[in-house]
Amino acid sequence: MREVAVIGIGQSAFGKFPWRTAADLGAEAVRAALDDCGISPKAIEVAHCARAYDANCTAQGVLKEVGVRGIEMINVENACAGGATSFRGVWKEIADGRYDVGVAIGVESMTTSPIAGKLIPPEKSDLEGHLGLTMPAMFAMVARRQMEQGATAEDFAQVSVKNHHNGCLNPQAQYKKEFSIADVLNSRMICDPITLLMCCPNTDGAAAAILCSMEVARRYTTRPIRVLASALCSAEYKYAQEDICASPVGIKVARMAYEMAGVDPKDIDLVEMHDAFANEEILRYEDLMLCEPGGGIELLRSGATAIGGRIPVNPSGGLLALGHPLSASGVRTVCEVVLHLRGQAGERQTPKAKVGLAQMLGGLVTNLEHGAVAGVHILAR
Amino acid sequence: MREVAVIGIGQSAFGKFPWRTAADLGAEAVRAALDDCGISPKAIEVAHCARAYDANCTAQGVLKEVGVRGIEMINVENACAGGATSFRGVWKEIADGRYDVGVAIGVESMTTSPIAGKLIPPEKSDLEGHLGLTMPAMFAMVARRQMEQGATAEDFAQVSVKNHHNGCLNPQAQYKKEFSIADVLNSRMICDPITLLMCCPNTDGAAAAILCSMEVARRYTTRPIRVLASALCSAEYKYAQEDICASPVGIKVARMAYEMAGVDPKDIDLVEMHDAFANEEILRYEDLMLCEPGGGIELLRSGATAIGGRIPVNPSGGLLALGHPLSASGVRTVCEVVLHLRGQAGERQTPKAKVGLAQMLGGLVTNLEHGAVAGVHILAR
Repeated sequence: MREVAVIGIGQSAFGKFPWRTAADLGAEAVRAALDDCGISPKAIEVAHCARAYDANCTAQGVLKEVGVRGIEMINVENACAGGATSFRGVWKEIADGRYDVGVAIGVESMTTSPIAGKLIPPEKSDLEGHLGLTMPAMFAMVARRQMEQGATAEDFAQVSVKNHHNGCLNPQAQYKKEFSIADVLNSRMICDPITLLMCCPNTDGAAAAILCSMEVARRYTTRPIRVLASALCSAEYKYAQEDICASPVGIKVARMAYEMAGVDPKDIDLVEMHDAFANEEILRYEDLMLCEPGGGIELLRSGATAIGGRIPVNPSGGLLALGHPLSASGVRTVCEVVLHLRGQAGERQTPKAKVGLAQMLGGLVTNLEHGAVAGVHILAR
Repeated sequence: MREVAVIGIGQSAFGKFPWRTAADLGAEAVRAALDDCGISPKAIEVAHCARAYDANCTAQGVLKEVGVRGIEMINVENACAGGATSFRGVWKEIADGRYDVGVAIGVESMTTSPIAGKLIPPEKSDLEGHLGLTMPAMFAMVARRQMEQGATAEDFAQVSVKNHHNGCLNPQAQYKKEFSIADVLNSRMICDPITLLMCCPNTDGAAAAILCSMEVARRYTTRPIRVLASALCSAEYKYAQEDICASPVGIKVARMAYEMAGVDPKDIDLVEMHDAFANEEILRYEDLMLCEPGGGIELLRSGATAIGGRIPVNPSGGLLALGHPLSASGVRTVCEVVLHLRGQAGERQTPKAKVGLAQMLGGLVTNLEHGAVAGVHILAR
């Protein structure tokens, strides 16, 4: 298996742009990624593109705009982990020696999708979903359990305060506004104890990453970012699991990635992850072994996961402030990690970042399991 | 690169089943494929699943039903070539040595999709589509050009008569009814000269194929079907191409496949292909080099592409009679080829079939190019 490098990253504006097409958003991200590494569109040999809603040869539509045509293009979907899936898809093509240069794209136009302004609807067969167990209800139930174990609503609010602060340092964030704990707690109640400012917004946007073999990378840059691990797996769907707070598939995939990368969780310098709801971030600290089991609340309270802390989490602003165009997020998190590893993250830079981790969870709440699929990538300079 | 075998094939019922979920249809196909080769669901290590409409972790939903959980699952989309894409995805996983056993799934529930009862809507940016250049209009325009070159409406009707006859020999076809040339010509005019019986129907259905390394295949069967070639590519989108009848990407991918397989078009014993409209099949004879350029009409009139002819095309009944659940068709065509190579195709069997070809075209009519993407697989016993 060949070593794979990321040489170009790009992101479109994130926000609500109902007048823009997915092709337009995706092309903005791909153009930025091509500019970032200075390669010609003609050098791209393969593309994987994630989009959850209205996919209809999206890769072809995006790449036509930037003059990439006549190559193998695969459109993928894996709910919120779609971007992690497209990144892994291109990584495989190169690691396995099938192609030398490829682009991973994630794009979502939420404001023009069939669920614009709505909650993600349950599948036909999802009984609990139809009875009201939507995403916010699910995470509210989990939050109640976290509160039984010592968390407070202020802790959840603190995650949102932290990530919105980070978003203020990110020119590409959808929301650049500081909020206080009181602001978050006093925002509209969505599903007790989850308030509006503890939920990620609906967002239009795209991200792209250009991957290549290490040999090709050295032609374009003296500082390629290496992909140490790529792991993706779907859930076991064990009904009524013992601990509704943990994501078993999230834990499994994190372990797969650490083992593949040959790094210890304590070697990780920064993490970008799925914080669709503020309380979720605390759970994932434990799933990703950034602390001992049960130590998530303490880790948050210690300030370790803030910018400047021991292990910054979501320095980009995360889904909460940067916005969450479903399939774009899994590529965008990788782009953020790359920025830090290159020392190009500006005011939100993680000092001396050498190894970073990008995680995504995706999928239905059916059977009380968070995440039908999880993807983790570990990158290093 | 390792040699890959198909050891199990399965198909759900094809028809209009608005009361069934995609998970249910997909599970029927996967169960049939597992039964076909006698392997345990636990042996499946990876899955790729195609679905164009309402994809939302469809692979996870399908496979949960049959007890396949906790593995890597990739949901893909490539319009009508989605099934070819999922088959190729699993082929790559095994050819590249990443996994030993995988399942390729294609599923579509057209009757519950947002386009149920409608034409496939044009993309936002597709100006011609919004001006009325829908799929039937596009193929009617192409048919007019074919008529300038010597084809008659009776020729187009003959394709439909042939494929509907074949469908009568296929227990799994949506329509099992013989039609005469007059029946086809006198059916409702859709877009002159394309009549209703020259259009493929909207269909719900699923297909699945189990692929594995040759080493594993020998444990389960003495007669594995080998995948000689897998090719997939997206279009160049050259506006106002010289010949609106040919599909440049279809020709390119056919050549890639023949070269990879090391076989000549004259070595092919049967073909399953995209006959969304009756006149299209004649064009694809030429794209796939089953005859000389311009020889498609003559090939049809000679009877060579009927069951019992020199090179049977769509012995299954094709999209016209068997039905066209978009993403399922690309896997279903492979399943049909496998049946013939095994000698299990019953009344529609191609005698002494040794090598077969499954082709799919997918995608928008934007810029007058047929097919945003083409996929071709060549299989042999």
